[in-house]
Amino acid sequence: MFKINDNYLKLPGSYLFSTIAKKVSAFQAANPDKTVIRLGIGDVTQPLAPAIIDALHGAVDEMGKAETFHGYAPDLGYEFLRTAIAKNDYADRGCDIAADEIFVSDGAKCDSGNIQEIFSVDNKIAVCDPVYPVYVDTNVMAGRTGTYDPKTEMWSDVIYMPCTAANNFSPELPKETPDIIYLCFPNNPTGATVTKAQLQEWVDYANRVGAVIIYDAAYEAYISEEDVPHTIFECEGARTCAIELKSFSKNAGFTGTRLGYTVIPKDLKCRVEMPPHVHSAAERAAHGENASHLGGTDVMLHSLWARRHGTKYNGAPYIQQRAGEAVYSPEGKVQLAKQVAYYMNNAKVIKEGLQEAGYTVSGGVNAPYIWLKTPDGMTSWEFFDYLLEKANVVGTPGSGFGPSGEGYFRLTAFGTYENSVAALERIKKM
Amino acid sequence: MFKINDNYLKLPGSYLFSTIAKKVSAFQAANPDKTVIRLGIGDVTQPLAPAIIDALHGAVDEMGKAETFHGYAPDLGYEFLRTAIAKNDYADRGCDIAADEIFVSDGAKCDSGNIQEIFSVDNKIAVCDPVYPVYVDTNVMAGRTGTYDPKTEMWSDVIYMPCTAANNFSPELPKETPDIIYLCFPNNPTGATVTKAQLQEWVDYANRVGAVIIYDAAYEAYISEEDVPHTIFECEGARTCAIELKSFSKNAGFTGTRLGYTVIPKDLKCRVEMPPHVHSAAERAAHGENASHLGGTDVMLHSLWARRHGTKYNGAPYIQQRAGEAVYSPEGKVQLAKQVAYYMNNAKVIKEGLQEAGYTVSGGVNAPYIWLKTPDGMTSWEFFDYLLEKANVVGTPGSGFGPSGEGYFRLTAFGTYENSVAALERIKKM
Repeated sequence: MFKINDNYLKLPGSYLFSTIAKKVSAFQAANPDKTVIRLGIGDVTQPLAPAIIDALHGAVDEMGKAETFHGYAPDLGYEFLRTAIAKNDYADRGCDIAADEIFVSDGAKCDSGNIQEIFSVDNKIAVCDPVYPVYVDTNVMAGRTGTYDPKTEMWSDVIYMPCTAANNFSPELPKETPDIIYLCFPNNPTGATVTKAQLQEWVDYANRVGAVIIYDAAYEAYISEEDVPHTIFECEGARTCAIELKSFSKNAGFTGTRLGYTVIPKDLKCRVEMPPHVHSAAERAAHGENASHLGGTDVMLHSLWARRHGTKYNGAPYIQQRAGEAVYSPEGKVQLAKQVAYYMNNAKVIKEGLQEAGYTVSGGVNAPYIWLKTPDGMTSWEFFDYLLEKANVVGTPGSGFGPSGEGYFRLTAFGTYENSVAALERIKKM
Repeated sequence: MFKINDNYLKLPGSYLFSTIAKKVSAFQAANPDKTVIRLGIGDVTQPLAPAIIDALHGAVDEMGKAETFHGYAPDLGYEFLRTAIAKNDYADRGCDIAADEIFVSDGAKCDSGNIQEIFSVDNKIAVCDPVYPVYVDTNVMAGRTGTYDPKTEMWSDVIYMPCTAANNFSPELPKETPDIIYLCFPNNPTGATVTKAQLQEWVDYANRVGAVIIYDAAYEAYISEEDVPHTIFECEGARTCAIELKSFSKNAGFTGTRLGYTVIPKDLKCRVEMPPHVHSAAERAAHGENASHLGGTDVMLHSLWARRHGTKYNGAPYIQQRAGEAVYSPEGKVQLAKQVAYYMNNAKVIKEGLQEAGYTVSGGVNAPYIWLKTPDGMTSWEFFDYLLEKANVVGTPGSGFGPSGEGYFRLTAFGTYENSVAALERIKKM
């Protein structure tokens, strides 16, 4: 008789945003006359920029003609896109990342969920608290997190790094040594960032203790201040300890278009205690395979992820990869800078509006997220209900991102300008 | 110090098609004057049909306007596509599959690799031998296959079901009872099929022993004979034992466009011995979550896969889902039937050509694959080299699909008509 992966049953409740969606549906069904403004889920609202649309149409036309049709894409991404990423996101910032260290995918959510697969189930993870729930949930599903305590809402084998007003929402180095450290800056949900010097401390720490940093830089395009690193590879030594996740969802509005990438430097290696059980180099060479990347006792994480991509993934669509290329074109850059500025103006409206209304607020300067302290000692979910009921505005309860998010609330700047203004007018009147 | 998932190191050599690509590159570098014809990898060559192209352009236009822009898709797929699939692929064939039992994805390769995640690592898999390598490889990566014997090229904890000329390439019920049975019909690589009565035997067997059948129907569109089932849900009782994987790659040329789906009936359940460690129903209800689907001791695989999709996946792109919808439009159906007929004419050219040249051949009638016995006792790789060298034609060594594929060779009908004819002319002259 088959059995299921019972780690799945350990997951408490449903995915945060499904729960919110159900609550909002129930409210709308009960109040059909009310217009709900959604500043909850981090989904964009502006249409794709003209340069992206042109690239999409162009690629679709190519797919319709035999001489320019594209079948299976290279598993790791088309050279034209990997080269554009390597130049614009790394070389132009003085970072040493080669095109073949970039793995193109259908989005950072998949990558951030799948990346844990290449690590041992015995490894211990450390996460910022609060943070994007996917990091912990996918490790739960893999059986890496121990037992769940419903009282503390914490897992026995996860190292939580509280990010609260006390430490300016920037985590301290953990007391217990982790194997895998998830960092996300600019942070989802707090909107906080670290300086380059602070991030360098993390890189030095990871190299010292032999940990891997999984660095989620999905919100990098929203950085407006100097001295905030755009990529972890600005830090010295990151090539031996860091994996970076990037998304086209927030800088180019690809939430429904799907494109992202992961960087794994070839210098990031793991010492393998037992000799791998593989064919001899000679046997493998006979099959046209160069065994050297697994030879000896150092294994590149790059090889493992390449193997995963090659075995479980079939490449991002050609059409989307051409759209990704257009993100780096001169027109694309101008148009997308305007789009980011539009959302950051919303962030300003929301942040200043909340401050005028007497709320304690952070974020919103280098990130599209505004993080507020709930008033009058309300829990995050109490404030969610209160805001939905009184202002018909949807936000995200801070506690949904981890126990230290309790008593906080997230609003996003991804709505329209009109809705952002209207939401704040309603909130001021509450 | 972090550790890697050392199951990855157990994988012998690289993914089959990477090895072939390297061998072909080396041959072309050494013989720049030779024109190589590729009948190896199962990639299509015909451009997307006009109905698909129109749908893609239309969806791209929608993405460029605020009022029709689409952000995050529903995790499980848009209603319009799930409804079209349920009607055309199931209801019209008299099969009872609801739209909400269909999970839209970016392709069957991902699904066929990821589906094993929802099962216990203790489960034992059974696979046809030879078969698409992804089934076994992804179970190796999960640690489900025991140890590898390089001599037999078999894993200690995998049940191999030989498919050879002796059993007309149709597997017999295994002697040892498996938990998970991978079946692929029309088969990749042999092109063989089973009758509805034969498939019914498998469904009855799975229900009797408590096994799940993962049924890969990627080549369903190529079925030309009566009495060959188009879906496992034509069989009685399949709703309590079967998961079906479907692809748009082969019936609509989406290899580089990426779209697929997986069907998990809600009647497919697993008895859970230990009560799941979850919040009480009351606590979960307070968060807007209906706990009934995990309540008691029966767990729906549908719920587990929904949880995986919701946590690790962000939906297939809107643009592609509109293209998928067009596959089921009246014009789409006519155009794609022509495309399938084009490839099946190639299959006829290849099969008859090989027979004229004296080869023993099967497949090619209900599938785009032609399966031939290598001549003169050559191994599969020897014949690969011989064919590349003498005819400059690339095929796929049967042994790459499993030990019982040794001494066989696969050619695909997915090339152009001109190349199929030219390849056979060269082969006849060898």
